[in-house]
Amino acid sequence: MKTVKEGEVRKQEILMVARELFVTKGYEQTSVNDILKIVGIAKGTFYYYFKSKEEVLAAIILNIVEEGAKRAEQILKDKSVPLISRMMMAIMAQSPEFEGSEAIRDEMHKVENAKLEQFYTKAMLKRMTPLLEDAVAEGVEADLFHLNYPRETIESILLLGHMLFDCNIMDWEVEDYPEKIQSYLANMERMLGTKEGELKDFLQMFV
Amino acid sequence: MKTVKEGEVRKQEILMVARELFVTKGYEQTSVNDILKIVGIAKGTFYYYFKSKEEVLAAIILNIVEEGAKRAEQILKDKSVPLISRMMMAIMAQSPEFEGSEAIRDEMHKVENAKLEQFYTKAMLKRMTPLLEDAVAEGVEADLFHLNYPRETIESILLLGHMLFDCNIMDWEVEDYPEKIQSYLANMERMLGTKEGELKDFLQMFV
Repeated sequence: MKTVKEGEVRKQEILMVARELFVTKGYEQTSVNDILKIVGIAKGTFYYYFKSKEEVLAAIILNIVEEGAKRAEQILKDKSVPLISRMMMAIMAQSPEFEGSEAIRDEMHKVENAKLEQFYTKAMLKRMTPLLEDAVAEGVEADLFHLNYPRETIESILLLGHMLFDCNIMDWEVEDYPEKIQSYLANMERMLGTKEGELKDFLQMFV
Repeated sequence: MKTVKEGEVRKQEILMVARELFVTKGYEQTSVNDILKIVGIAKGTFYYYFKSKEEVLAAIILNIVEEGAKRAEQILKDKSVPLISRMMMAIMAQSPEFEGSEAIRDEMHKVENAKLEQFYTKAMLKRMTPLLEDAVAEGVEADLFHLNYPRETIESILLLGHMLFDCNIMDWEVEDYPEKIQSYLANMERMLGTKEGELKDFLQMFV
């Protein structure tokens, strides 16, 4: 009899293989058959875990969000680093741009996959907001931040950062980015209610 | 021989009928045939103007953005109204929630149409940003606003407002909205660099 543990392992194995295939062959070009051939399972086994190839992609996206959140959590925990640096690094580290998830991200950003993009955004906000809320509370305690709506402000900062810099909404040229990032950091300072220029030095992290 | 004018009229007629059908029957349930039957044109004529039903929807969305921008422009022009009121009304009036575009918006917000949503967001930002930039410049001139990145700040305010309140990203309950709108207004005050509480009274416009 298969244990729950084995089921979870099998599921993660399917996700790992599928992720590899989506990255190397492309999502559209990968069939469920391609996946099961490599994992070495029958069609029925696959469909026991997932309703469709799209559901596999959704699960991969949740994994990516979780990986990003884990990196952010790790960074935020290290109190030997100044709070603002931890926060900025956590926000950066959370983005799937890190650790070779670019191909999945590219797949996700194709116009056809705009619904996956939305799925990612929702999941990321849900997972990341509480982590950064704790950090903001720490900053309020330390008289570093001054704001009335910590949760909503975090949501807005995350949502703006994601929409402005990870999605294809803005049609900016490469040379526009330093200015755009500066303005994002300046607005983040104001929303968090910290000193003007406090986040200025983090520009280099983004470019 | 058909003139350019007649062609434009025919095109707008197709858009009007299609918009009506998309609203009453739903986008998926409306066929190109349904549209041409009512407009009273041959298939060839339809395909002379549009490649697909989807292209018709895209054109309708551009029309909606244009209608919203026209309303906003009208409001911003009336200098007998205080600047901040004009700006807030323009931002509200621009949203397709006004003037019976809800059904198209609902269609657009279905997960399957997330790409149309993205198309709308891009078009709206492009069209609305310059209008509000002028208003912000007026406010800077009048020592009402104090900010270093007017264009980017307008983009962020529009993008946030749209993502938070028009899209289905946030999973908020109805009772959450007053608080969410207050926080949006508070962050808008900070980004524009105006007095705290300056926008507070506009809460009632949103709820």
